[in-house]
Amino acid sequence: MTPRYAQRMAQVQPSAIGELLALGADPSITSFGGGYPDATLFPAGALDAVFHEIITAPGGAAMQYAPSNGLARLRDQVAGLMQADGLAACTGDDVLILQGSQQGLDFVARMLVDPGDVIVTEDPTFLGALIAFAPSQPDYAVVPVDADGMQTDQLETLLAAQPRAKMIYTIPDFQNPTGVTLSLERRKALIALANRYDLIVVEDTPYRHIRFAGLNLPTLKSLDTEGRVIHLGSFSKILVPGLRIGWAVANPDLLARMGQLKVAADTQTSTLNMAAASLFLDRYDLTAHIATLRAAYATKKEAMLDAIRRHFPQEIHATDPAGGLFTWLTFPQGFDTTEFMRNVALPMAKVAYVPGATFFPLTPRANHARLNFSAPSLAAIETGIAALGRALKTHL
Amino acid sequence: MTPRYAQRMAQVQPSAIGELLALGADPSITSFGGGYPDATLFPAGALDAVFHEIITAPGGAAMQYAPSNGLARLRDQVAGLMQADGLAACTGDDVLILQGSQQGLDFVARMLVDPGDVIVTEDPTFLGALIAFAPSQPDYAVVPVDADGMQTDQLETLLAAQPRAKMIYTIPDFQNPTGVTLSLERRKALIALANRYDLIVVEDTPYRHIRFAGLNLPTLKSLDTEGRVIHLGSFSKILVPGLRIGWAVANPDLLARMGQLKVAADTQTSTLNMAAASLFLDRYDLTAHIATLRAAYATKKEAMLDAIRRHFPQEIHATDPAGGLFTWLTFPQGFDTTEFMRNVALPMAKVAYVPGATFFPLTPRANHARLNFSAPSLAAIETGIAALGRALKTHL
Repeated sequence: MTPRYAQRMAQVQPSAIGELLALGADPSITSFGGGYPDATLFPAGALDAVFHEIITAPGGAAMQYAPSNGLARLRDQVAGLMQADGLAACTGDDVLILQGSQQGLDFVARMLVDPGDVIVTEDPTFLGALIAFAPSQPDYAVVPVDADGMQTDQLETLLAAQPRAKMIYTIPDFQNPTGVTLSLERRKALIALANRYDLIVVEDTPYRHIRFAGLNLPTLKSLDTEGRVIHLGSFSKILVPGLRIGWAVANPDLLARMGQLKVAADTQTSTLNMAAASLFLDRYDLTAHIATLRAAYATKKEAMLDAIRRHFPQEIHATDPAGGLFTWLTFPQGFDTTEFMRNVALPMAKVAYVPGATFFPLTPRANHARLNFSAPSLAAIETGIAALGRALKTHL
Repeated sequence: MTPRYAQRMAQVQPSAIGELLALGADPSITSFGGGYPDATLFPAGALDAVFHEIITAPGGAAMQYAPSNGLARLRDQVAGLMQADGLAACTGDDVLILQGSQQGLDFVARMLVDPGDVIVTEDPTFLGALIAFAPSQPDYAVVPVDADGMQTDQLETLLAAQPRAKMIYTIPDFQNPTGVTLSLERRKALIALANRYDLIVVEDTPYRHIRFAGLNLPTLKSLDTEGRVIHLGSFSKILVPGLRIGWAVANPDLLARMGQLKVAADTQTSTLNMAAASLFLDRYDLTAHIATLRAAYATKKEAMLDAIRRHFPQEIHATDPAGGLFTWLTFPQGFDTTEFMRNVALPMAKVAYVPGATFFPLTPRANHARLNFSAPSLAAIETGIAALGRALKTHL
């Protein structure tokens, strides 16, 4: 039996780095790969209490089916979070609960992209987005990033030459993988270009609230005057990933279409998890919890950058992100981080990272790597960066 | 801003019965719509205990990210359930954990169906499957059912005329919406035809273990000698729907492709819910719990059929299912159950059901309705059927 797969499956392939990352799961390896939050900071006591309360409540509603677009109370609460983040008019009707914001990436591509339509992304961009978009068979156009995020002057040139562009995908805050943040000026420029070229903007914000210092810049959604920004948010990094709860905020037409895809894709997000997140927001102080995370991850970021300064060869550059989970390394031209990971970092230094090549939609660049600082302990950051530094000094 | 949607969205439409079913959510309405299990039978104490144990376990693993194909322990346990159900060689490697079996329906269509490819279904069939398949833009070919399920002699005629047939979708046990079960002889005939015409068979089994009497027939997967059956299972009806945990069992090629779609679609099913289901299976007796459900739903089914006999006009026929959640009504030709629900059943009798027209992929028939007996109480079954009977006697 040889299955006759649909054509879209030609673009759906196993991750090129899956094998390498699987090696990193070895407990003797210090992993700076992945994008895991720090499990020691999970609010276990609070979640234990809310799950107990919802499961033992009379009627068993938290264990039953629920509306496909999400529990009404949770949608209202998410709207409240959006209001506090500059979207004053947001209501629960503007919110669709998702199985993590990853599901939103699948939906926006399915909703908007015919085979050969163009998705514009930062270069590099989030690997999970490329994986989510693949079954919709997009082409890509890419815009380089610098310390102020996507270079919107280059975006303008690109859009003028891309009649099949349908949407711009961006992570404005503490971008994955580079850690950079889109400046206010560029946020305004991006929205103006989307308006001029009649494009949808997908704003992915999983790290937005993990800011180490300073004030947040306005969301793209809050700058959106024409209803063309689809804002994706998530509890994965600010509560726990195991709940798998994200959301979309978008104009009513787009949100209704995404809601139809939600019915098709999995009927609904887990009632138990929606009810637990909702009760957590009622009973506990999410802002205070986020403050704890910000302080802890800021300390880890500083520790990692400090260790890099002390242990790495001088010619390796690391970004200094103002928030989020990652720093992005640039090695000298000609250095191949995939080869180095396979031949040296994993077997000899016992350290894993994510080779940068995988984050480029069109033309991989071999001399980058993404390091995560949220998951490893401070001790693991010091010993892992030191081990990686020794190996780099030997091989560079 | 007018969104330019992808072509596939032309087939993705709001459910025609959504508005009617929304009316049925009025608490003054007795609902025989939906397919909800009885919330009074949920094992709340057990789930309370397992959530407490997994959330407070050292390390916080149940709140963290987990492998995309599911927790290894849960996949092994599901393989054990499949072994006990006649699939002796099943291992955890043959199992993919899904966000409910609904997600499996989305995946099989995305994996196999190019626009215009043909999915063969029972006529009528599960509305949720039609919704899941729609974004893949299938055409349909349909096979009538009788008391022994899909009429496989007609299936043969149909397949000879359908070169674009890619897969057969069937609910062999206590089918939704009709309640009928595919006979052993027809199971063998269906597999032989799939082999001859080189088709994938998608076997959807959400109700399989809710059998009122007698022994289960072999799954199609257990009769599959060529690795062409994709078996979908679910905890929604035998544990609780709020967990949103289902699974696929299929040959390694097909399962790997579905696993790639899982990464794309939502990264993973909720770690908390997978860990809770797994610990429930370790600590509690699922078979004993299912025995309780079987007895309770058998009693409700008998109560509903008995009430129909006493209260309905004689010319209305109801199927007598050997298991599951539904009976299927056939009214005299010319009777329109959608009109009757809108004009009489909801406003006057204060009773909701699902009009049958929505379950037919190609040619709706107006003179059917699906009644659910698992969710309503025995008292609601009696009063609701009596009220519906009075209204029918007035209007038929």
